[in-house]
Amino acid sequence: MQPLNAARLYVQTVASNSPARLALLAFLSVIAVFTLLLALPISSANNEFTALHDALFTAVSAVCVTGLTVVSTADHWSFWGQVFISLGVFIGGLGILTIAALLSLAVSKKLGVRGKLMAQSSMSTTASGTLGEVRSLLKIVITTSVIIQLALMLVLTPRFVVLGESVPTALWHGMFYAISAFNNAGFTPHSNGLVPYEMDLYILIPLMVGVFIGSLGFPVILVLLQFKGVFSKWNLHTKITIIGSFALVVIGAMGWGLLEWNNVRTIGGMATGDKIVHAIFASIMTRSGGFNLVDQAYMETNTMLATDALMFVGGGSASTAGGIKITTLAVLFLAIFAEARGERDVKAFGRTIPEGTLRVAISVVVLGATLVATACGLIMMLTPASLDRVLFESISAFATVGLSTNLSAELPPAGKYILAALMFAGRIGTITLASALSLKQRDQLYRYPEERPIIG
Amino acid sequence: MQPLNAARLYVQTVASNSPARLALLAFLSVIAVFTLLLALPISSANNEFTALHDALFTAVSAVCVTGLTVVSTADHWSFWGQVFISLGVFIGGLGILTIAALLSLAVSKKLGVRGKLMAQSSMSTTASGTLGEVRSLLKIVITTSVIIQLALMLVLTPRFVVLGESVPTALWHGMFYAISAFNNAGFTPHSNGLVPYEMDLYILIPLMVGVFIGSLGFPVILVLLQFKGVFSKWNLHTKITIIGSFALVVIGAMGWGLLEWNNVRTIGGMATGDKIVHAIFASIMTRSGGFNLVDQAYMETNTMLATDALMFVGGGSASTAGGIKITTLAVLFLAIFAEARGERDVKAFGRTIPEGTLRVAISVVVLGATLVATACGLIMMLTPASLDRVLFESISAFATVGLSTNLSAELPPAGKYILAALMFAGRIGTITLASALSLKQRDQLYRYPEERPIIG
Ligand SMILES: [K+]
Ligand SMILES: [K+]
Repeated sequence: MQPLNAARLYVQTVASNSPARLALLAFLSVIAVFTLLLALPISSANNEFTALHDALFTAVSAVCVTGLTVVSTADHWSFWGQVFISLGVFIGGLGILTIAALLSLAVSKKLGVRGKLMAQSSMSTTASGTLGEVRSLLKIVITTSVIIQLALMLVLTPRFVVLGESVPTALWHGMFYAISAFNNAGFTPHSNGLVPYEMDLYILIPLMVGVFIGSLGFPVILVLLQFKGVFSKWNLHTKITIIGSFALVVIGAMGWGLLEWNNVRTIGGMATGDKIVHAIFASIMTRSGGFNLVDQAYMETNTMLATDALMFVGGGSASTAGGIKITTLAVLFLAIFAEARGERDVKAFGRTIPEGTLRVAISVVVLGATLVATACGLIMMLTPASLDRVLFESISAFATVGLSTNLSAELPPAGKYILAALMFAGRIGTITLASALSLKQRDQLYRYPEERPIIG
Repeated sequence: MQPLNAARLYVQTVASNSPARLALLAFLSVIAVFTLLLALPISSANNEFTALHDALFTAVSAVCVTGLTVVSTADHWSFWGQVFISLGVFIGGLGILTIAALLSLAVSKKLGVRGKLMAQSSMSTTASGTLGEVRSLLKIVITTSVIIQLALMLVLTPRFVVLGESVPTALWHGMFYAISAFNNAGFTPHSNGLVPYEMDLYILIPLMVGVFIGSLGFPVILVLLQFKGVFSKWNLHTKITIIGSFALVVIGAMGWGLLEWNNVRTIGGMATGDKIVHAIFASIMTRSGGFNLVDQAYMETNTMLATDALMFVGGGSASTAGGIKITTLAVLFLAIFAEARGERDVKAFGRTIPEGTLRVAISVVVLGATLVATACGLIMMLTPASLDRVLFESISAFATVGLSTNLSAELPPAGKYILAALMFAGRIGTITLASALSLKQRDQLYRYPEERPIIG
């Protein structure tokens, strides 16, 4: 019992000193376990060990709900390999703070005050602050997550049966797609992905709904469960996330559709209705779902750039989606809007957004852009691929989207590790990462006088 | 006298209602005059009219102190054409608010209170607030500018004589380079640019010094004139700008040198000393000078990306350099640093930077990035050129740098107009632009309660 007690003590100490660092460690442990599982012969179709860089990349891609692949999910992995991938996606989709809270409860039976606050903020904006609620919050989050994924599975499975699959296969595929969709993972168990279903709305609509709900985030889902469609009762975070999500879906679909309308390598030759379905599907998937109907390498360069922008924004905070998040973008735009109008406060829906919020938002964006730029630079040294492809793959990794022009598979191991690091940093969140790595947080005892430099 | 009185009344009204809009109009007028002058046969070497898009592009490039060209400065333009270009550069280098203040004083003999405040802030951070000082401030700015350019000319001219030019030619070239350097314009009157002087430190050092001083900005230059090297007496703006400038020169030179060290198409075949000179020169010129020793199209893609980043940052506020400005970058980094350490205030050199400053900084960066991205997207539709070249030329235009892979000259007229618009917006500054275009600035009578969305 001595080592277990030591581990318990260690977790307790880290949890009370730095919950962010605990979350980081918990997440790393989960990835290590799945890397090991995927490297074993039982996970591969040909019953051999998988190379470490490929196993690690796939484990990171699964647990960080990204969906980038270096080997074919359908062909390289055995049934068990695919089970591990979807289990990794399910666990990863809960979010790193939820995982950390679970681990912390399991090992030490209690959470520190700061850990409880962090865990709460990752699951709900409405938690009243009584710390005892974390356990029940955890239960609600996991229950909700499971119920939505079961519902998706129950819709998808009959369709696969109708399309000719055996009932066990259809159940398996239904479950795999349900987990992949709600958790915004974008893995597909079919070797040619979703292409055979590109006109099949019985498949596409559940996938779009699942991805969209997952991308809203647990804090929003819990508010919706509590207050339904009564807009006035929603909190500010929910209002911004929902309106921002719909706006981005519409803008993305219009942009994608217009840019690709006459591109014969993608949707140029289709009927108008099919073009519209493709545009809406692409728009929803771009902000983190990662499923694709058309070959991303065949898109116009401008479509790739627009996709880059949408991927970088991503979905809701504490969701299964990645990116800098919708509220971050919204706060930036509201601040710029207020600045241009010469207003003192940044406002939205009759609320003032505190000044400190903007500082967090800009930190998220700049750190994210810096990570992507650095990774791009490093990858450019490893491959003759063009900048637009490298940028696309890097942003796709950082924003845990999983759309790809297949560059991941072409890169040497060093490039795969860089992309894996991007996925990891993107899923953890740059702020959590920075606060986990910072040595200590100082309390401020005095303030300096103010002085304003000229800006711009 | 009736029309003149009407014009005077109009200028007075605009100046008191929106100094930003007046500045915009003044700047547009200057560009219109130079477009006309350059389109005339007297300006071209072959004595014919120059196409409007080429005349406009060159006028914008000169007055916005950019240095991008669509026709060879040495071959296409006559002596008078080159005189107009350097006159445009000299006027443009004073800055749009200085131009507006001059115009306003010339036409209406007085400045409104808001106009005086704006003009002051564009020239000095130390102005005590007595509005009568604007006239003397204008005198100081113009005198300083002329003296520095004369000094550069006096250093450069003897060297051109030594290199075999006649005295009048050497005087003319000395003046042209002096104006081009201090105003960070990057135009060269020689058909093969600076390449013949690439090892000539008697030419290169004055150019680097001139560009560097110009890129600090008048508010910093005035503080340096007043307090010399006594660091403790400098204001916050000067401290940040000077330290930031030196840091960026060093980082840029190291980065550029390392990335190009073995590139035989640029500096790979040179002696170590020459490589270092080239790296330092490139680093200084990248943040807005725009002179180049090596063919920019021959650089590694990663060097182009690093150059993109340095160009986007640019020089000091209210300087002859462009970009988002050093203080803007510094405020963002200080804010992120404070956020990561969990500190309440953003601090530098014993001063707290006011919260509102961050909002301005983020507006500058996001508006700039949006402009560049939009222009890139539009230009991609007009040319088969690769993304890295289009991005390079767009950022070079926005940040009024003038480094080029020669894409400007290859583009159809529509592309030239887009780049001209970018140079214009970049030189005016996104904030001035936004405030000139905004309909009215509202005073706020009440505040909403605060509510904090989840960020990141
Ligand atoms: K994904
Ligand atoms: K320039």
